[in-house]
Amino acid sequence: MKEYYKKDEWCIIEEGFNPEMHESSESIFSLGNGKMGQRANFEEKYSGDSLQGTYIAGVYYPDKTRVGWWKNGYPEYFAKVLNAPSWIGIDVFIDDEVLDLARCEVSDFVRTLDMKHSTLSREFVATLKEGKKVKVEALRFLSIVDDEIGAIRYSVTPLNFSGKVSIFSYLDGDVHNQDSNYDEQFWSVDAVKAEDGFSQLVARTKKLDFVVAMSATFDLCRGENHIYSDEKHKQSEKSAGSKVFTFVQSGEKVTLYKYASVLNSQNYPVDALAEKGRKAVELAHKKGFDKLLKEHSEAWEEKWNHSDIVVEGDVAAQQGIRFNIFHLNQTYTGKDERLNIGPKGFTGEKYGGTTYWDTEAFVLPFFMSSADKQVSRNLLVYRHNHLQRAIENAEKLGFKDGAALYPMVTINGEECHNEWEITFEEIHRNGAIAFAIYNYVRYTGDWDYVYEFGLEVLIAISRFWAQRVNWSAEREAYVMLGVTGPNEYENNINNNWYTNKMAQWTLQYTLEQIAEVKKRMPQEWTRIVSLAKFDEAKEIETFNDVADKIYFPSMMNGKLFMQQDGYMDKFQQFADDLNSAERPINQHWSWDRILRSSFLKQADVLQGIATFEDHYSDEEIKMNFDFWEPRTLHESSLSPCVHAILGAKIDRMDKAYEMYLRTARLDLDDYNKEVAEGLHITSMGGTWMAMVYGFGGLRVKEDMLSFDPKVPEHWKSIAFKIIFRENTLTVKMSQGRTEITNDAGGDLNLLINGVKHCVEGNNRLVVD
Amino acid sequence: MKEYYKKDEWCIIEEGFNPEMHESSESIFSLGNGKMGQRANFEEKYSGDSLQGTYIAGVYYPDKTRVGWWKNGYPEYFAKVLNAPSWIGIDVFIDDEVLDLARCEVSDFVRTLDMKHSTLSREFVATLKEGKKVKVEALRFLSIVDDEIGAIRYSVTPLNFSGKVSIFSYLDGDVHNQDSNYDEQFWSVDAVKAEDGFSQLVARTKKLDFVVAMSATFDLCRGENHIYSDEKHKQSEKSAGSKVFTFVQSGEKVTLYKYASVLNSQNYPVDALAEKGRKAVELAHKKGFDKLLKEHSEAWEEKWNHSDIVVEGDVAAQQGIRFNIFHLNQTYTGKDERLNIGPKGFTGEKYGGTTYWDTEAFVLPFFMSSADKQVSRNLLVYRHNHLQRAIENAEKLGFKDGAALYPMVTINGEECHNEWEITFEEIHRNGAIAFAIYNYVRYTGDWDYVYEFGLEVLIAISRFWAQRVNWSAEREAYVMLGVTGPNEYENNINNNWYTNKMAQWTLQYTLEQIAEVKKRMPQEWTRIVSLAKFDEAKEIETFNDVADKIYFPSMMNGKLFMQQDGYMDKFQQFADDLNSAERPINQHWSWDRILRSSFLKQADVLQGIATFEDHYSDEEIKMNFDFWEPRTLHESSLSPCVHAILGAKIDRMDKAYEMYLRTARLDLDDYNKEVAEGLHITSMGGTWMAMVYGFGGLRVKEDMLSFDPKVPEHWKSIAFKIIFRENTLTVKMSQGRTEITNDAGGDLNLLINGVKHCVEGNNRLVVD
Repeated sequence: MKEYYKKDEWCIIEEGFNPEMHESSESIFSLGNGKMGQRANFEEKYSGDSLQGTYIAGVYYPDKTRVGWWKNGYPEYFAKVLNAPSWIGIDVFIDDEVLDLARCEVSDFVRTLDMKHSTLSREFVATLKEGKKVKVEALRFLSIVDDEIGAIRYSVTPLNFSGKVSIFSYLDGDVHNQDSNYDEQFWSVDAVKAEDGFSQLVARTKKLDFVVAMSATFDLCRGENHIYSDEKHKQSEKSAGSKVFTFVQSGEKVTLYKYASVLNSQNYPVDALAEKGRKAVELAHKKGFDKLLKEHSEAWEEKWNHSDIVVEGDVAAQQGIRFNIFHLNQTYTGKDERLNIGPKGFTGEKYGGTTYWDTEAFVLPFFMSSADKQVSRNLLVYRHNHLQRAIENAEKLGFKDGAALYPMVTINGEECHNEWEITFEEIHRNGAIAFAIYNYVRYTGDWDYVYEFGLEVLIAISRFWAQRVNWSAEREAYVMLGVTGPNEYENNINNNWYTNKMAQWTLQYTLEQIAEVKKRMPQEWTRIVSLAKFDEAKEIETFNDVADKIYFPSMMNGKLFMQQDGYMDKFQQFADDLNSAERPINQHWSWDRILRSSFLKQADVLQGIATFEDHYSDEEIKMNFDFWEPRTLHESSLSPCVHAILGAKIDRMDKAYEMYLRTARLDLDDYNKEVAEGLHITSMGGTWMAMVYGFGGLRVKEDMLSFDPKVPEHWKSIAFKIIFRENTLTVKMSQGRTEITNDAGGDLNLLINGVKHCVEGNNRLVVD
Repeated sequence: MKEYYKKDEWCIIEEGFNPEMHESSESIFSLGNGKMGQRANFEEKYSGDSLQGTYIAGVYYPDKTRVGWWKNGYPEYFAKVLNAPSWIGIDVFIDDEVLDLARCEVSDFVRTLDMKHSTLSREFVATLKEGKKVKVEALRFLSIVDDEIGAIRYSVTPLNFSGKVSIFSYLDGDVHNQDSNYDEQFWSVDAVKAEDGFSQLVARTKKLDFVVAMSATFDLCRGENHIYSDEKHKQSEKSAGSKVFTFVQSGEKVTLYKYASVLNSQNYPVDALAEKGRKAVELAHKKGFDKLLKEHSEAWEEKWNHSDIVVEGDVAAQQGIRFNIFHLNQTYTGKDERLNIGPKGFTGEKYGGTTYWDTEAFVLPFFMSSADKQVSRNLLVYRHNHLQRAIENAEKLGFKDGAALYPMVTINGEECHNEWEITFEEIHRNGAIAFAIYNYVRYTGDWDYVYEFGLEVLIAISRFWAQRVNWSAEREAYVMLGVTGPNEYENNINNNWYTNKMAQWTLQYTLEQIAEVKKRMPQEWTRIVSLAKFDEAKEIETFNDVADKIYFPSMMNGKLFMQQDGYMDKFQQFADDLNSAERPINQHWSWDRILRSSFLKQADVLQGIATFEDHYSDEEIKMNFDFWEPRTLHESSLSPCVHAILGAKIDRMDKAYEMYLRTARLDLDDYNKEVAEGLHITSMGGTWMAMVYGFGGLRVKEDMLSFDPKVPEHWKSIAFKIIFRENTLTVKMSQGRTEITNDAGGDLNLLINGVKHCVEGNNRLVVD
């Protein structure tokens, strides 16, 4: 798919209609506004292959677990953010022939995602039977201002004939999920209504009773003028809509404006939904398409003001980074602490349940730097809200006394995943959740979070680590057996360096924060001790002991960190040895072959070093990078960004640039051959880090922002906006020069290449 | 369930009807004749819980694989020996009230399995509405003489009233499989027929088109006399039968004799099935119930003449061993080389596909000693027939040049299993298949098998081992990474001692047999070289090199064998430490907890020592037994027999006896709480070995039979029949005395307690 989409700084452009690329494009051109999302499915009927996707944040379905062989401890269900009823349907009939791009000749097809304003537009000419040509232009958006509103402008122009154009605008509740475990339909329809200028559909998930009211209204216009057409109301058990028609002269354009509201029972009483939904869509209709679009576009411009990154001199890189930032902003707005960021956001069904360790390890930094701290805080509070369930989850696995294991995949705090080697063993996620607390406090300075919420979580996670290790008399150390690291190309291994490191660090940080809270907020500490039933003397001793004596596999006098016990027994191979026809190996090799090979999906040791960079000397980082990088296949979307960051850090700029493109254009260029299923939303946070932490060299050091710019040679400059505590900065880095503009906030001390500078409020600092 | 069934030397007896035990009893009282099998489902209607099971050897269904998360390399289907249409149905109506043991009062219920004659009988008194009491007596068998025939004698006696008795005898094709992955029905019915005195049902599996014709006829008698009743033919889309009625006086007995034939398309052309089936059942009918039963009973007595084991002084042990021998003989007769021995035989659906390593490692010895060598040879030929598919299976996993990996589970040579840690990693099965060749030749003296079939298989398996290891520079040895041993309570481990031992031994034996065939049958060797494309110089060097330098984890100067790398890092626990409420742990602990615990499902090291006992000194055996036995939970049905054999060998007689009872009465006393699903047929071969190899101390040494009797203290004697090459022996061991009668064959040299004796043909040897 490389080079399929046209390179452009602000847009993604597809020229020409290629049905075999359509499902991929449906992912790429997805829209979202934090509350709902929509794949780039066609409005008009399309009988070709398509993955229909309308998603509503927080509305999920507990799909009964499907496994081959049940293991004790598996969850009963997998929570899936599910395909919901669709509001976009606009069927078009030309002299009663249905317009279907799978069944006519298509020319001049252009599909455009305008990332600056979050609109999806499409135009094409269709040649129907008897050679009739019609031009179609469509534009739609999901309002970021009123996030329960979507709108479409859909125009039809007969090019070489005059005739009857009929349009059927409808809501469709006959929804199927491709990712359903037992081919069940997840939705039932409670009510449908179709009346003059209005249709409504109230649907309900068959389990958990989420209710969604979709309401729609429309205008039909010739030029600026409304057309009043006889309206046929059509409603079936699961759909409702109106069909109108008009006679159109050759060259004349007829336009349907469709407005829809999508309200759900998370936010309103069920019995108020229908009426609220009607009012919402009437309000939108009254406001009108142009005004809605203007508000929406302006709000998006404002978003970019806080989060844009400008790359001069490399359109592919520029388009890539904006594509990533765009989708992150579409997926999560931070307004609702019940929500989180799913691996595919609103772009596909796969990996259904929303929350993985991705959020803490890869996405949090973007939101810390581009939005108010309340947004990141909500991501942390989400986990705090799930603490009790994480404790129950650990209990199921035999842990006790308030130890918590956060789920691998969750939407409501309960574990959803059902592969033993991941569900029960990929426990490093606990470490990422602990680290996020530290990372948030370090960046925002919001230490209050520690005693308000964080420390409870830290204690529960530390308890888990302390129970999960066991003493090995052989090694005279604590060992951690039977885990899976982030590198999922090994399962059930012993002493995964990364997991042991996360465990050790969590214990140490917990001890440190216990001391801090005890000293600074003794009353809060008393509350926490009582709440967590913390046995202070005994548990502190245990935490210290485990942290001190945990085992780390290593070579070269402890400087080269080994991913796990026995790694060096493997036949050592390098990514360069591998025939490209065999890649990705997870599509070509049997699982056992992958497991016993020396290849990594992602490099655990480097993930750990990137997380705790300040614990290691440059020499150690280099030694480990040079050892692990050649063994890494980057078949995890979360892998390349880490190598970009570390590569830049140790001046492996070619590698850093290669890895940057790979993460930034992972989906645009479909590196992993799976973009049809949806985009890799969470790895987009990694792209942002690759740019800002990698090339920008941003860190927090000594409680200050610190930059160590590494602008790739052939780039003219990088400029990015960041929020840091009270300050809003624009940072521009060109070869040999760094300019920092303090757009808001007071004087700010910061480090550039290790040298302390002050950038005054509303002023600019230039360092050559 | 302990002590639920009455102890009896030849029978299993259930007194009293306990619906909660019914599904277990359906397993325990199953019948089979090698070609078909039948769970002890009631003939009459039963609306309570029941697992219906009628099985036809070799008729299977490729059920679409169900997994949670697909791994590359998984098979498309799981072959299931499936529940087939049922021929046993006899509904009874008393004055139009249906007899249903779930809906009436039941007294004087006795169910009896006569193992000597392979019959299932049942009697009870049912009290119906208005206090009517009827007595029912039923007896059925599956003829071992004509293995396509089953017959039932079913009598009804009104005890306290006179009235109408109606009987509906039918064939039922509306079959469900509880173990269906997607709740599909596996059978469709091609034709049904019901006419005077005859009904027929032709059914077809929805995939693979196995066709089965079931035909039935019956007689209704009062005393000795036929009753001619009006017959109502009833047929539906999926069933066919006849309903007859008669008026019966209080105290008078009315009896239905039902004859059925079951023919399938493995043995006849499809279009001949209906007619052949009709003829077969007519022939049976003509012969009559008593004669059929007599032939059948005599044939079973003859079977016992070759395979019985008599224990004097311990009814529980006696009943246990006969129960095991009985079910082995019911499951497999060795007449058809396409068949094999499934883990549940004809007693349940679970583990569907028939063939596991169980056959070679646990069942072969019983058939070697109790049947003509052709029977065991057929079990070996079965694998030879699958060689090409085993090579293809290995290719899917990345192996090449004719390396073979036999499937974990198969019916036709293709792999069916779909758990990566087993399918791809439990590769020790390859070793068991190689060892079976050696074991067969050693016992039968049939060395011709080696060049005719065996060596091709050995070479292909050796190639697999040679490719499966890799050189570890760290250890300066070949290591085998990522395997699962017989102890499935550890997955994806490195250097499993047992697997490495099997690999080393296979390589050595292959090299030895190559030399032997080359020397003794050079033309055959030329044929094999060409067939296997064997690169003699190179491959022999590789085989030697790997066999010499393969790594074995051990402690205590190499005398204590370690199950796998890193075992001693585990927190060491013993079976005695475990609360009985937590056992079996696979029903109480999450999988990860099991994996990282030191507990074993079965002891790999002891399995290996039992296999290669002559490679180890008594001191080594004791040291390893004392280390591993206390860590073993025996949650595999294949575990206790190994401990019984080794325990007896090293005079741990209490342990040996405990383990013997556990294997012999595993199902009768339902140790693993799962007997309702079916019996553990293959582990019954282990029971036989526990008795004959354990207490009898039978081995083959210096090409002779060797006995080292270890009769448990409180037993008076053990006597068993065995066939060894041309001789048929009865061996009787009492405390301090061994008598061997040579029932057939010439003079035979043998060892008793290491001393050589000769037992002459048709003569008796007594050694005190």
